[in-house]
Amino acid sequence: MFGGDYNPEQWPEESWVEDMQLMREAGVNIVTLNVFSWAALQPGEDVYDFGRLDRVMELVRENGFMVCMATSTGAHPAWMARRYPDILRTDFGGMRRKFGGRHNSCPSSPTYRKYAPLLAGKLAERYREYDNIVSWHVSNEYGGACYCENCERAFRIWLREKYGSLEELNRAWYTAFWGHTFYDWEEIVLPDLRSEHVDERRSMHPGITLDYRRFMSDAILEGFELEYRAIKEWIPDAVITTNLMGFYKELDYQKWGRKLDFVSWDSYPSNEASYAEIAMGHDLMRGVGGGKPFALMEQTPSSANWLPFNALKRPGVMRLWSYQALAHGSDTVMFFQMKRSLGGCEKHHGALIDHVGTGETRVYREMAELGKELEALGGVFLGARTPAKIAVMFDWDNWWALEHSIGPSQLLDYPEEWKRWYTALREMNYDVDVIAPGDELSGYRLVVAPLWYMVKGEDDRSVRRFVKEGGTFVTGFFSGIVQENDLAVSGGYPGKLRDILGIWLEEWDALAADYENAFVYQGHTYPAYRLCDLVHMEHAKQVDEQGYCEDFYRGFPVVTKNEYGKGRAYYVATASSGEFYRAFLSDLCAEAWVEPVLRTPEGVEAAGRENENGSFVFLLNHTEEEKWVFFPWDGEELLGGDVLRAGEEVMLAPRGVMVVRK
Amino acid sequence: MFGGDYNPEQWPEESWVEDMQLMREAGVNIVTLNVFSWAALQPGEDVYDFGRLDRVMELVRENGFMVCMATSTGAHPAWMARRYPDILRTDFGGMRRKFGGRHNSCPSSPTYRKYAPLLAGKLAERYREYDNIVSWHVSNEYGGACYCENCERAFRIWLREKYGSLEELNRAWYTAFWGHTFYDWEEIVLPDLRSEHVDERRSMHPGITLDYRRFMSDAILEGFELEYRAIKEWIPDAVITTNLMGFYKELDYQKWGRKLDFVSWDSYPSNEASYAEIAMGHDLMRGVGGGKPFALMEQTPSSANWLPFNALKRPGVMRLWSYQALAHGSDTVMFFQMKRSLGGCEKHHGALIDHVGTGETRVYREMAELGKELEALGGVFLGARTPAKIAVMFDWDNWWALEHSIGPSQLLDYPEEWKRWYTALREMNYDVDVIAPGDELSGYRLVVAPLWYMVKGEDDRSVRRFVKEGGTFVTGFFSGIVQENDLAVSGGYPGKLRDILGIWLEEWDALAADYENAFVYQGHTYPAYRLCDLVHMEHAKQVDEQGYCEDFYRGFPVVTKNEYGKGRAYYVATASSGEFYRAFLSDLCAEAWVEPVLRTPEGVEAAGRENENGSFVFLLNHTEEEKWVFFPWDGEELLGGDVLRAGEEVMLAPRGVMVVRK
Amino acid sequence: MFGGDYNPEQWPEESWVEDMQLMREAGVNIVTLNVFSWAALQPGEDVYDFGRLDRVMELVRENGFMVCMATSTGAHPAWMARRYPDILRTDFGGMRRKFGGRHNSCPSSPTYRKYAPLLAGKLAERYREYDNIVSWHVSNEYGGACYCENCERAFRIWLREKYGSLEELNRAWYTAFWGHTFYDWEEIVLPDLRSEHVDERRSMHPGITLDYRRFMSDAILEGFELEYRAIKEWIPDAVITTNLMGFYKELDYQKWGRKLDFVSWDSYPSNEASYAEIAMGHDLMRGVGGGKPFALMEQTPSSANWLPFNALKRPGVMRLWSYQALAHGSDTVMFFQMKRSLGGCEKHHGALIDHVGTGETRVYREMAELGKELEALGGVFLGARTPAKIAVMFDWDNWWALEHSIGPSQLLDYPEEWKRWYTALREMNYDVDVIAPGDELSGYRLVVAPLWYMVKGEDDRSVRRFVKEGGTFVTGFFSGIVQENDLAVSGGYPGKLRDILGIWLEEWDALAADYENAFVYQGHTYPAYRLCDLVHMEHAKQVDEQGYCEDFYRGFPVVTKNEYGKGRAYYVATASSGEFYRAFLSDLCAEAWVEPVLRTPEGVEAAGRENENGSFVFLLNHTEEEKWVFFPWDGEELLGGDVLRAGEEVMLAPRGVMVVRK
Repeated sequence: MFGGDYNPEQWPEESWVEDMQLMREAGVNIVTLNVFSWAALQPGEDVYDFGRLDRVMELVRENGFMVCMATSTGAHPAWMARRYPDILRTDFGGMRRKFGGRHNSCPSSPTYRKYAPLLAGKLAERYREYDNIVSWHVSNEYGGACYCENCERAFRIWLREKYGSLEELNRAWYTAFWGHTFYDWEEIVLPDLRSEHVDERRSMHPGITLDYRRFMSDAILEGFELEYRAIKEWIPDAVITTNLMGFYKELDYQKWGRKLDFVSWDSYPSNEASYAEIAMGHDLMRGVGGGKPFALMEQTPSSANWLPFNALKRPGVMRLWSYQALAHGSDTVMFFQMKRSLGGCEKHHGALIDHVGTGETRVYREMAELGKELEALGGVFLGARTPAKIAVMFDWDNWWALEHSIGPSQLLDYPEEWKRWYTALREMNYDVDVIAPGDELSGYRLVVAPLWYMVKGEDDRSVRRFVKEGGTFVTGFFSGIVQENDLAVSGGYPGKLRDILGIWLEEWDALAADYENAFVYQGHTYPAYRLCDLVHMEHAKQVDEQGYCEDFYRGFPVVTKNEYGKGRAYYVATASSGEFYRAFLSDLCAEAWVEPVLRTPEGVEAAGRENENGSFVFLLNHTEEEKWVFFPWDGEELLGGDVLRAGEEVMLAPRGVMVVRK
Repeated sequence: MFGGDYNPEQWPEESWVEDMQLMREAGVNIVTLNVFSWAALQPGEDVYDFGRLDRVMELVRENGFMVCMATSTGAHPAWMARRYPDILRTDFGGMRRKFGGRHNSCPSSPTYRKYAPLLAGKLAERYREYDNIVSWHVSNEYGGACYCENCERAFRIWLREKYGSLEELNRAWYTAFWGHTFYDWEEIVLPDLRSEHVDERRSMHPGITLDYRRFMSDAILEGFELEYRAIKEWIPDAVITTNLMGFYKELDYQKWGRKLDFVSWDSYPSNEASYAEIAMGHDLMRGVGGGKPFALMEQTPSSANWLPFNALKRPGVMRLWSYQALAHGSDTVMFFQMKRSLGGCEKHHGALIDHVGTGETRVYREMAELGKELEALGGVFLGARTPAKIAVMFDWDNWWALEHSIGPSQLLDYPEEWKRWYTALREMNYDVDVIAPGDELSGYRLVVAPLWYMVKGEDDRSVRRFVKEGGTFVTGFFSGIVQENDLAVSGGYPGKLRDILGIWLEEWDALAADYENAFVYQGHTYPAYRLCDLVHMEHAKQVDEQGYCEDFYRGFPVVTKNEYGKGRAYYVATASSGEFYRAFLSDLCAEAWVEPVLRTPEGVEAAGRENENGSFVFLLNHTEEEKWVFFPWDGEELLGGDVLRAGEEVMLAPRGVMVVRK
Repeated sequence: MFGGDYNPEQWPEESWVEDMQLMREAGVNIVTLNVFSWAALQPGEDVYDFGRLDRVMELVRENGFMVCMATSTGAHPAWMARRYPDILRTDFGGMRRKFGGRHNSCPSSPTYRKYAPLLAGKLAERYREYDNIVSWHVSNEYGGACYCENCERAFRIWLREKYGSLEELNRAWYTAFWGHTFYDWEEIVLPDLRSEHVDERRSMHPGITLDYRRFMSDAILEGFELEYRAIKEWIPDAVITTNLMGFYKELDYQKWGRKLDFVSWDSYPSNEASYAEIAMGHDLMRGVGGGKPFALMEQTPSSANWLPFNALKRPGVMRLWSYQALAHGSDTVMFFQMKRSLGGCEKHHGALIDHVGTGETRVYREMAELGKELEALGGVFLGARTPAKIAVMFDWDNWWALEHSIGPSQLLDYPEEWKRWYTALREMNYDVDVIAPGDELSGYRLVVAPLWYMVKGEDDRSVRRFVKEGGTFVTGFFSGIVQENDLAVSGGYPGKLRDILGIWLEEWDALAADYENAFVYQGHTYPAYRLCDLVHMEHAKQVDEQGYCEDFYRGFPVVTKNEYGKGRAYYVATASSGEFYRAFLSDLCAEAWVEPVLRTPEGVEAAGRENENGSFVFLLNHTEEEKWVFFPWDGEELLGGDVLRAGEEVMLAPRGVMVVRK
């Protein structure tokens, strides 16, 4: 599927025919429609007007396009905001918003909860016969948060369901601290700048903030579910999604993934992003969808508009990144947008059809070429899965808990630490699955849990079983510190991981931004950043040569290994450089009998997918130089049609792509 | 006219006589009175008390001073704020202000609109017989903006008058974007942090923000006009102004200039400002007054108080900058202030009479010397005009439109880009007029339109005519992109300028802050900053040697020239360094037969004025070294009385000044 | 006294016994109880529940601990905030807070003023028989400010009492500036972002802001006094304090000191703090207590949690800094906290008993060793006074006035300038008292008044008398500029200090952040920072060699000396480096016959105390190297028991401590 957002409502009807011709000629076969049409479709409280959309749908069908049908509830109408101000959000500082922008509906608003699913249902009812609608797209880029009184009330209800009693809530929130004991549910106020927060990050009661984040993610998800059900009522077999946003802090996508028929997402890396950073988003998104293929719903054909400096995507990059999405599990290549708007804040955002209105632009030509190429490939790797033997754990609760704690270091950043581990694996061409704590691990050989600060409930169990049965597990500093509600563990860190890792963590030192300690691993000296854990051996053995090189904890172990059952559990007591993670993880992979997809020169990525049509290896040259790749096996290159022989070395052009079937 | 703000209401009456003696001895002949006396003049809603002002006016007349009479409506009384809170502003984040500070009246407040002109009228009535009142000074440094509900209502009325129908408004604002369609005027909310803004700059609907800026500038101007009319009712031949502030973003001074009897302004450069930056303000202000002489209403005699570091003006600088104002068209040298206040936030701001209260200070002595010098000069160049053959276009709408767009580069700054062109011309001693788009161009030989992003209505016409008739026109990157309401042009940039320039602009690349490309012009390599336009030649020819030196658009033309009618239209596809603008503009001037005022060593400015008394050249040595200036013609130096002969080389002392009559 | 905060309410009762055993074993003999128990003690408006506290008190007595009994009014209950929102504060931007955090009661709230003393009284009544309560601890770390309408009303009453009439207030506030004249008390609004402030610092009417600061400090102090009196009603001989915070801007501790039975404070330096910075806090706190010994109420045993990077205190540092507190006049060594909380924002803050719950940690061991050492010392230097011959003036009004003025330099920082002088004296081992303006000076030989910008009332008198009678006085740039209400002095700076110093200060130049001038003193060249005063000699003589080295005021004197009566008054016209202050102050000390406590190698601090048991010298090695100290007199080392002979050189271990009785 090749195409993307098309907003005919922004243009005179007489231009639609020409637009569609330009799209067709570019190889587009799917359009996302109706993303921001609420105000148009429902001009008044009891008035609906589908006339224009009807005409669009007819024309689209005539032109042979598939449709991704949006419910257009991503921005509510102005009249609704005026008549029912409860639909407007209140921000983190208590400022009640007025009409404007988007992402603007309060998830607890009765008005929103009434009229959004009503519209979704009406759309499903009206267009249910259109068999070119291949998926439904609820709202748009859900996000943000609300801090209004309706949300406060809904939060209390959510808490009552979660905790049952105030005694239990007082215990979970440790309200004895700073005399916060609640004697009535109504006394609970939501955490924001007016109550518990020093600033956006630091909360004086992190447990309360943590629950509000959970509640808010759930509340917004409920809005999705209301529309989901309204559509299914009319079209039981509708395929429904909403476009996610990768590493997006506000929403616990692992919970969301279970409610979507398939995952789709919008990928907007800057030109400066490393290829591992881009891949990371794809792998996370595939993970929240349970490993199934996902849809790349949006990317920009050329420049964005919201970056500080919106550089053009260099020639070839749009194609390269499109294939990278496919390599990591996407079954679509879609764009925002088909035609560039004349007004509004996105008029400087790239599109297939630029303001000039013709196909005579560089961007159009590159897209049309890609469109043809994809058409030629057919659906050969559609539905293919990633055959990963490594799992990397990611968890929104850990992100939030670290974000809102005060101390030990302001530079402690969950995704940043996570990225260190992921990047090393990606740069060595190990395919990985991104999993959640508690997920089944039996299919993997190596499990990595970066910065596993909060170990919830019995999430240690699957790890313990995995290691006992022969798996290799590794985690790092500041892990096993707190439980589900951000209450510290008693009796010694790393709490439930203590027996698995065989160490006791007594205390940690926070290093200033520009300061580093060091340690030696396999004869090389590596830096130590951020936090230095001071650990004592219980059953583990020291793996690094001599512990920290400096300071009063010189000699304290940095890398430890615990033989546990048939497996091994490693601990790395500090943060380090990419060189370290590559050296260390490569040793672990070797020990765990995990092979990379292919060994390639620096800057060339290799990623695999498998389906009934075979085993595919995507080769992506992210550099501006020619690179030579050595093939240890026979294969067939699908883009050029070449046959590759084992032992052959093949040139990959700058920003070039190969798709090889083994 | 030599003098400035004097606030006798801050001092015991018995000190007035001594103050006036000190002022007289310093050569002061004009005082600005009554700037902040509203609370004193109107102690209650129905009570006016002019007793003290009467006594001040008598004494001032006895002492032979002229008066610039302020209406004192720049700050409303505390009692008024308490009784009529509608007079208080609401800020950009929705915070309703309380009483305090200044610039504090909401322009839409019924209270303000009633009582401000009432006071102005009473003052005019009472003091109309004083023939030493040479001008009226309405309010003070108008500025800021208000976001209250009264302004929201007034905005809707303004919109209704502008657009007539909601259909037209929805079209002009492109409300189909993000589903913003308005079905009722009452649904429209003003754009601020509560509605359309991400931050002070970035607006999600720039068209709405643009109109609000226009409305707010108009609304504040209406406040001026109400007072203006109230004064004229009593004194039909009153000469009325208000003190403007140079490059002040909030107010469209080109619109204001048409409502003032003469332009006056307050010039507060920091010690670090280049002389071109200071000159720029004077030329802009002369331009908004239609080229007529203006009044320098305020400058500091020594230090300011509101800078991060308030250094003293070095000896000689106050005199030098005073003459620079005269050189660029001022007919006055006035100061804030005559006597330094003991309290309030300006007690650390310089004055003629310092806290010590005597004339025994460096600052007093320097001012007294200047006073005598100006007295000796007489009014010889009063009323003189600047004989500019070059016009540089400036436009508040373009400033606002660029400011509030999201993308393509956060470093795109209209005045900053404008300054590059102006500075090059100023540094080479070309006198320029600052004009508005659409202004008559027939008197000029060269017209420069820096960053002409938004081409409104038929503003291209005068340029087209100018070029056809033999003029030289030049504009730069990112021009001709949008129309009046920030809607992009269809059919190819630079829109209406396309035929004049003979190019098609396909796309642009935004360069990160620390990145530059390069190009070669006349054998020298110059840097390319900010944006690189990728243009295609239609009728134009490439002027630079080989296009961009780097990146995938290497070779794309940077400087183009289009022969059009009898004239020429140039385009510069990127931003560059001062060296480039000087080289390029000097070539253009030569081609257009424009001569500089005089060729001088670096750091010495030459500027011209002409009236019935002759043709004057001001020579200003902005350096701390002696400079030798070569005179190609005979002349008479007015400050020293020397006669200059053609071919003579004359020494200009450090920070020295010469005024030469040819 | 050795111990600190213990919060048993955060733990199950069954753990208390074990906690107390661990504390006892560590040598703890005092616990601070009940700091955050308001919600627990008063679960409803008419319900009090002391059951748990009764049990704690019993157990604590059984275990032989002394008690510092907190009134727990530092954080009000949630139910109270819900029922009586007047107890919630409004912040500087006008945001009304909700329940959350701490420091949260509005000082003008009728609810707070009713229920806080009521609780304090009930506690006093109930526990008055416990003779192990050695002191009462009202609220906790008072601070912050409120800007609500109740405070606004209370401010007006405070003003009416201070000024008597609006005429006097209008004069004191110089309301003629910007037309602020008030005709009715109700017109006065409090100064915040909604009224007079540009930002947190800059006030458009600094006189108003200054009075609000004074009012707010007084209002919060009244809250203390209400509780104080409620306790005294039941226990007339109760010893009452509240924990202060050193250089804390919000509260005028010199006024507070007079209301406390003894001063206690919380010292939380970062690891990077110089030892002089830490000592500075102790000396200030001793000063606000009139020179009497104070209590170190809180310090962290190991890491803090609220720093950007919370490094561990290195081994030995906790002991070293504990002795430093004793050296500067503390009679206690107390900590926050005895047991680390599991939840809330302070769970990452160090404690005697860590989350692991045992005594097997480095931190516990270090504390237990210190506990034993202090026990062995006995109370030998309890009650000892510091025999200082030097006084350094500090004044909150000056801090506030400089903070809220606009100009002359944004880098002008009162404590920063103050620290330059203090640090030089401390680094040379001169004991100093920190005094307030107007304090009796007869016991001193040298008086230093850094940046004495505001000279209030007759505060010059004690200085004039002191100098006349033979004392040495020194002050620096920008002194004697304004009077009590931030009104500038007329007739020449430095106003009332002019005759004492024998100079006239004409003007000053503000230097940019990265710029410096220079001057020569005793043959060495030193830098000039921040401001350069331009002074003229009246009776003084120039002490520096040649004045400023650069700029147009080259040659203007920098250091001046005026023989006045039997004494001398010095002026230093700019800010300079530590090298200068050490050289200059050492000369002044020599001239004034003041001797250091002891001459020591760099990094070794010596400080003295004296009581009936003798004269004690504390030696503190703040470096990580061994240092050798030469003793010019005989003495007895109290920690090791060694006898020291005059002429002996003794090794001080890295971070080592000696306490020597002469």
